[in-house]
Amino acid sequence: MTHDQITIMFFALALLLGVARLLGELARHFQQPAVLGEILAGILLGPTILGTISPGLLETLFPQQGTNAQVLHGITTLCVVLFLMVAGMEVDLSTIFRLHRPALLIGMCGVVGPFFVGFALGHWFPRSMGMEAGANHLAFSMFLGVALAISALPVIAKTLIDLRLFRTDLGMVVIAVAIFHDIVGWVLFAIVIALMNADSSRLVYGITTTIGLTFLYIGVMLTVGRWLIDRLLPWIQANTSWPAGILGFSTALALLGAATTEAIGIHAIFGAFIVGVAIGDSRHLQQRTRNTIEHFISAVFAPIFFASIGLKVNFVHHFDLPLVLLVIAIACAVQALGSALGAMWAGFPRRQSWAIGFALNARGAMEIVLATLALQHGIIGERLFVALVVMALFTSIIAGPLMQKVIRRKTAVRFRKFLSAQGFVAQLKAATAPEAIGELAAVASRITGVPADDLAAAVLERERIMSTALPGGLAVPHARIEGLARPVVVVGMSENGIPFDAPDGEAARLVLMVLASPLHSQQHLELLADIATTFQDPVTTARASAAVSMTHFLAVVNTAEESTGHAPAPRVKAGHAASPPQPRA
Amino acid sequence: MTHDQITIMFFALALLLGVARLLGELARHFQQPAVLGEILAGILLGPTILGTISPGLLETLFPQQGTNAQVLHGITTLCVVLFLMVAGMEVDLSTIFRLHRPALLIGMCGVVGPFFVGFALGHWFPRSMGMEAGANHLAFSMFLGVALAISALPVIAKTLIDLRLFRTDLGMVVIAVAIFHDIVGWVLFAIVIALMNADSSRLVYGITTTIGLTFLYIGVMLTVGRWLIDRLLPWIQANTSWPAGILGFSTALALLGAATTEAIGIHAIFGAFIVGVAIGDSRHLQQRTRNTIEHFISAVFAPIFFASIGLKVNFVHHFDLPLVLLVIAIACAVQALGSALGAMWAGFPRRQSWAIGFALNARGAMEIVLATLALQHGIIGERLFVALVVMALFTSIIAGPLMQKVIRRKTAVRFRKFLSAQGFVAQLKAATAPEAIGELAAVASRITGVPADDLAAAVLERERIMSTALPGGLAVPHARIEGLARPVVVVGMSENGIPFDAPDGEAARLVLMVLASPLHSQQHLELLADIATTFQDPVTTARASAAVSMTHFLAVVNTAEESTGHAPAPRVKAGHAASPPQPRA
Repeated sequence: MTHDQITIMFFALALLLGVARLLGELARHFQQPAVLGEILAGILLGPTILGTISPGLLETLFPQQGTNAQVLHGITTLCVVLFLMVAGMEVDLSTIFRLHRPALLIGMCGVVGPFFVGFALGHWFPRSMGMEAGANHLAFSMFLGVALAISALPVIAKTLIDLRLFRTDLGMVVIAVAIFHDIVGWVLFAIVIALMNADSSRLVYGITTTIGLTFLYIGVMLTVGRWLIDRLLPWIQANTSWPAGILGFSTALALLGAATTEAIGIHAIFGAFIVGVAIGDSRHLQQRTRNTIEHFISAVFAPIFFASIGLKVNFVHHFDLPLVLLVIAIACAVQALGSALGAMWAGFPRRQSWAIGFALNARGAMEIVLATLALQHGIIGERLFVALVVMALFTSIIAGPLMQKVIRRKTAVRFRKFLSAQGFVAQLKAATAPEAIGELAAVASRITGVPADDLAAAVLERERIMSTALPGGLAVPHARIEGLARPVVVVGMSENGIPFDAPDGEAARLVLMVLASPLHSQQHLELLADIATTFQDPVTTARASAAVSMTHFLAVVNTAEESTGHAPAPRVKAGHAASPPQPRA
Repeated sequence: MTHDQITIMFFALALLLGVARLLGELARHFQQPAVLGEILAGILLGPTILGTISPGLLETLFPQQGTNAQVLHGITTLCVVLFLMVAGMEVDLSTIFRLHRPALLIGMCGVVGPFFVGFALGHWFPRSMGMEAGANHLAFSMFLGVALAISALPVIAKTLIDLRLFRTDLGMVVIAVAIFHDIVGWVLFAIVIALMNADSSRLVYGITTTIGLTFLYIGVMLTVGRWLIDRLLPWIQANTSWPAGILGFSTALALLGAATTEAIGIHAIFGAFIVGVAIGDSRHLQQRTRNTIEHFISAVFAPIFFASIGLKVNFVHHFDLPLVLLVIAIACAVQALGSALGAMWAGFPRRQSWAIGFALNARGAMEIVLATLALQHGIIGERLFVALVVMALFTSIIAGPLMQKVIRRKTAVRFRKFLSAQGFVAQLKAATAPEAIGELAAVASRITGVPADDLAAAVLERERIMSTALPGGLAVPHARIEGLARPVVVVGMSENGIPFDAPDGEAARLVLMVLASPLHSQQHLELLADIATTFQDPVTTARASAAVSMTHFLAVVNTAEESTGHAPAPRVKAGHAASPPQPRA
């Protein structure tokens, strides 16, 4: 690479990562999965928007051909492989084994139905579906079947993680089905590619080999490989530098797995995913190691990859609206419906079944990879290519919002949502608890409009019954106040500490006053519980009480969520959302 | 990239990372810095060894040209840029400001001397030094001066980190000087490149621009940039998902810095390094965030980059032994000597001065990058190129061992060095402290040859004076035993716990018996202190007491070193080695 090429590579990566993270946060702000913003970043930086405004700049930053295009492709492929390793590490094998019946049922419904619909459409209406003149008709029909049947493991995994559904039964069923789709999809696509070759004598051989090797790889990795990794991890942790030894080993193994499956003829991400499953299953892998891998890869590599999806196509050229709408309608109809029906058949409740259907409907990067290969092999033309890519993006984008809508997950009550910049006292003048309550009541009065004396009186009465001090220098005076539209939390700091009659005898350096209407008593209790959980660790309280502004205070609170230390996090096996592998949405 | 190219890319990356980590650990085993093993991995996998055994395999895995070569180059450049960001984050600006006088003095000695020696040699003996016919004589002489004057920031940073010298005064002086060398070296090299251009009217303009922009970049980043980052970090931590927000922001900024300096005309790594310095300086950057970035990058990206250095050249072709020896001799003489004399002049003790000289003598990747550019521009030929690369590798490889030898760092006494597989009792039968001591004494007797009764009596006598139980279920019975060649530590577990009269009343589930000769009383005390530090956190004790073999036990102990949690680690400002940014060597 030349000097200029390196310059452009770094500008391109910085832009991709920066904009993807920015829009990802924006998506989260509007209660959407981050992956939505990350894909939109690529559309913004790609041919669709940037290419329309300044084709020259686009061609310079993200060229379609040449060294920089190749290098960016290599790096984004590395990014998605690392991300799939992380997704694999989160898979709970025992849950998958337990759920293999519904997964197989849903998987069959989601593959067989869409495949035959796609095949039939390609067979009977090749021209309307966008087959190129001179293309192999059988290969085209099969490709269309595969294109409808496939799911996007990376997008689905990211959406489930974003929605904190990954480690639930529902999440694990979806992942199991997506794996099933992936295997079937790649094997079918290998058949499509083989059909293109004139030499039919090698056709059956090639297909058999790919299928055989794929199952061999999965089988070996999840039995012997898993056993070996479980034996090796303690040895590595005992005899190599920590954590470089275990991190290097895990990543090298994932890269090797990626190379192996790519060599077999299915995509590299699949191999890294299975390695992730095998490593993640070992009870010797510490939570801290998981966190280091997950945090860095999810924050840096996943956004770069998801943004890169939007770079691949110019959505203006070759845009055939009827074909796009047709493809989207058919794709959603057969896949979402097929999988949802399968889920209902497997006994899932109606809403959950639809969530499963919407999740598996996301085609994402997988579809784009397949469509790109089909375009290169001359099976499809640009019109259908664009339609498939639009469908892939559309189904990926709607998956999260639709799931969220249909599941109606009850979001946890967080006290930070009820803070405001006004309700912050950096230095309490008070020397006693009643004085502190009076000071904070005056602040709360300005926010609520309720007279300060009434607030103070109510809080003091509650305080007289029993001290609200918690261990570690925290006090949470609170009261029910009639007529408050929503709860209010005000924050005060005291450098010298205020005696609040704490169980551990420590003076309170941090005082949080919580006021809520009697109508919101459930929320009130959850607020107090959230405060107690957040400040479980005295270190958090100490750091928070040193904050000089609401922003500093929020920074401490926001980054304290994982402060329970390095004890292995419980892996919830069933029923409801467990501790997320990613920061909370 | 085609299917086959992706397969090869992942095999190549897996091999580089796997072998580099393996040889890195091996190097550590022999008390050498890990970077030595990592560079050797590249020589093993590169033209020198693999290329001799199987040129075809080498050409397949690590081709010199074509898509895979470009992509690997892009990825390794990304790796070194990320590594330099981490190295930058470890720089303690206040120490550098405090040490700017010795740094400038040493820097001048290490640049001026070598540059003029190189220039003179190139000027008077161009043929013996390997100048090609038709090359620009002035450019050649200047290049030779730069080649001798430059240092390798990445190799030096890695060596200092490996040796746990990074955050010491010595380490910071070396880093400050290396930064100085880098700036001067790149500016001088920009002049060399400019000299090659026929249009002399733009010569002064180009040089002035590069110098001006470089200082502008450094100036802006370390003042306004640093101030802005310090303001932004709390906002990011308060308002974005944690830790994805802060990790994404830091990395995107480093990539942007890399692009900027590459555009200015100095290398990309320099920009990332300065961004790292600016970010790392903020007191709002939490230790956990630092750790996540450092651990993953040091374990995965740094090894890939350092291994890739060895891939670049075939050391068999174009190998000119006299020239190689001449270049090495001159390089070491002028740089190590120059810097060491500068350090003595600046008031450093003799041994530390030599350590500074040896550290700055490492030319590493920087020299190879420069030599590659010079070869491309026709300033030098293959013979001198190989000689410079061999010199770069040789000086990098000897830097760590020589520094270690000359500094004679006293290594910390670690109790894990005195454990053995024999001295491990997975289940103590004992119900009382004297019984447990008897059981462990029997085991220790087999290792030491001292009668078990004598051992038990000595330990019991010590135990009678005061209980050796520590909080959290740990007991450390110990005694001085005449005639022991080296200390012995034996380990016993008790599922039900053994009452050892602990301060917190908890029964001991983990018993470590320490025996040492009265001649080793200092070591004895340090052993006990090390045990107390390691098991400071009751979680570690609980996890260790569940171990079923010495390997499991060691895995717990080895990974417990950072278990002090998320309180910010103290940054030692001066004097002696501080907490290392990497696992201990």
